Amino acid sequence: MRAGLRGGRVSKLAVVLLSGGLDSTTVAAIAREQGYRILALTIDYNQRHRIELAHAARVAVAIGVEKHIVLPLDLRGFGGSALTADIDVPKGGVEPGIPVTYVPARNTIFLSVALGWAEAAGAKDLFIGVNALDYSGYPDCRPAFIAAFEAMANVATRDGGFTVHTPLSAMTKADIVREGALLGVDFGMTWSCYDPTPEGRPCGVCDSCRLRAKGFAEAGSVDPAL
Amino acid sequence: MRAGLRGGRVSKLAVVLLSGGLDSTTVAAIAREQGYRILALTIDYNQRHRIELAHAARVAVAIGVEKHIVLPLDLRGFGGSALTADIDVPKGGVEPGIPVTYVPARNTIFLSVALGWAEAAGAKDLFIGVNALDYSGYPDCRPAFIAAFEAMANVATRDGGFTVHTPLSAMTKADIVREGALLGVDFGMTWSCYDPTPEGRPCGVCDSCRLRAKGFAEAGSVDPAL
Repeated sequence: MRAGLRGGRVSKLAVVLLSGGLDSTTVAAIAREQGYRILALTIDYNQRHRIELAHAARVAVAIGVEKHIVLPLDLRGFGGSALTADIDVPKGGVEPGIPVTYVPARNTIFLSVALGWAEAAGAKDLFIGVNALDYSGYPDCRPAFIAAFEAMANVATRDGGFTVHTPLSAMTKADIVREGALLGVDFGMTWSCYDPTPEGRPCGVCDSCRLRAKGFAEAGSVDPAL
Repeated sequence: MRAGLRGGRVSKLAVVLLSGGLDSTTVAAIAREQGYRILALTIDYNQRHRIELAHAARVAVAIGVEKHIVLPLDLRGFGGSALTADIDVPKGGVEPGIPVTYVPARNTIFLSVALGWAEAAGAKDLFIGVNALDYSGYPDCRPAFIAAFEAMANVATRDGGFTVHTPLSAMTKADIVREGALLGVDFGMTWSCYDPTPEGRPCGVCDSCRLRAKGFAEAGSVDPAL
């Protein structure tokens, strides 16, 4: 019998990084399905698309997380990315290489903060919605990074024993849409766009909007957020 | 000829984690001596001894850093440490094991943020004042942690090539006092105490005060901050 609420045993705690997007919301639903009690962590890094924070808050309630922390951690003072500086978000389509929307060391920072919460709370499991197929080419989404982070985490801490779960790692965007739908995710609550219009609508042409649209199209379903 | 201001070549940038304490101040002086232009990073993690932030600001000016960022990153929401929760700071003397002043994943978080700034600024060198002799037994001060972090950083980022410098790693506290003095550090500017008195004076009996006093005593000098 699996450990979890439905297994009749005390379920384990996990820290889930939740941006409010399609990927992290599906990851949260997967963690819940696996029986984890969820500590949801959202980082307010003064991102161009801070609108996602409100979506993360709605998702956290819908998923039924145990606790949700939105942590201010302003990366705009460092700049170096179209998401944290006055650099235009590319709109011409996903290209090879690492785009200017890459935020230096973002997932390292996010996972480190998640590790701090996990260690303080007695959780041994971290979840992050990276994937390495339909993605933007960011170095900190690759399996080699996750493995190196996990190895580091286990010498960084009091007792080690941490696992970084990346259930989307080998999934296409269409797979993610199908998996989320199976788990009852309301994608209408989620937000993906990097560069919202002044009216607070997705731009439709940034990499993140394009990858999302590709996922729904290939899954043969309609994006309820549009 | 060494790269550096005095070498007549354009010197390299380094991100130096600066708490305003004896160790990190000496590290900043070492980085300067090695010819680095310094980006000094101080984290306001809502620590019990937030008084150290003002000391870090004075040190940054005295060292002549290129830029100093004090980044709010509130770890009190996670708790789990006498420095970030309502847990008494031990006053009975340094004991074996990891004390309750350990802040879960603190150095992982700090180095990750430093890595983000470094990558954004084009710096390849990070400096941190960990040492593993006269220290509090924190897991994230050990050489094995630093090596694992460096390995992780080099797959986490666009081009890798980062070095985490820990010039104090194999030094005693007395060695650090002597090295800082040689480099002209004004230790009167620095702050080490975990649990300041209501009057803003060092308590004198926490582990950090005791280790500092031991360093000055063994170096045969007087602490100008007392």
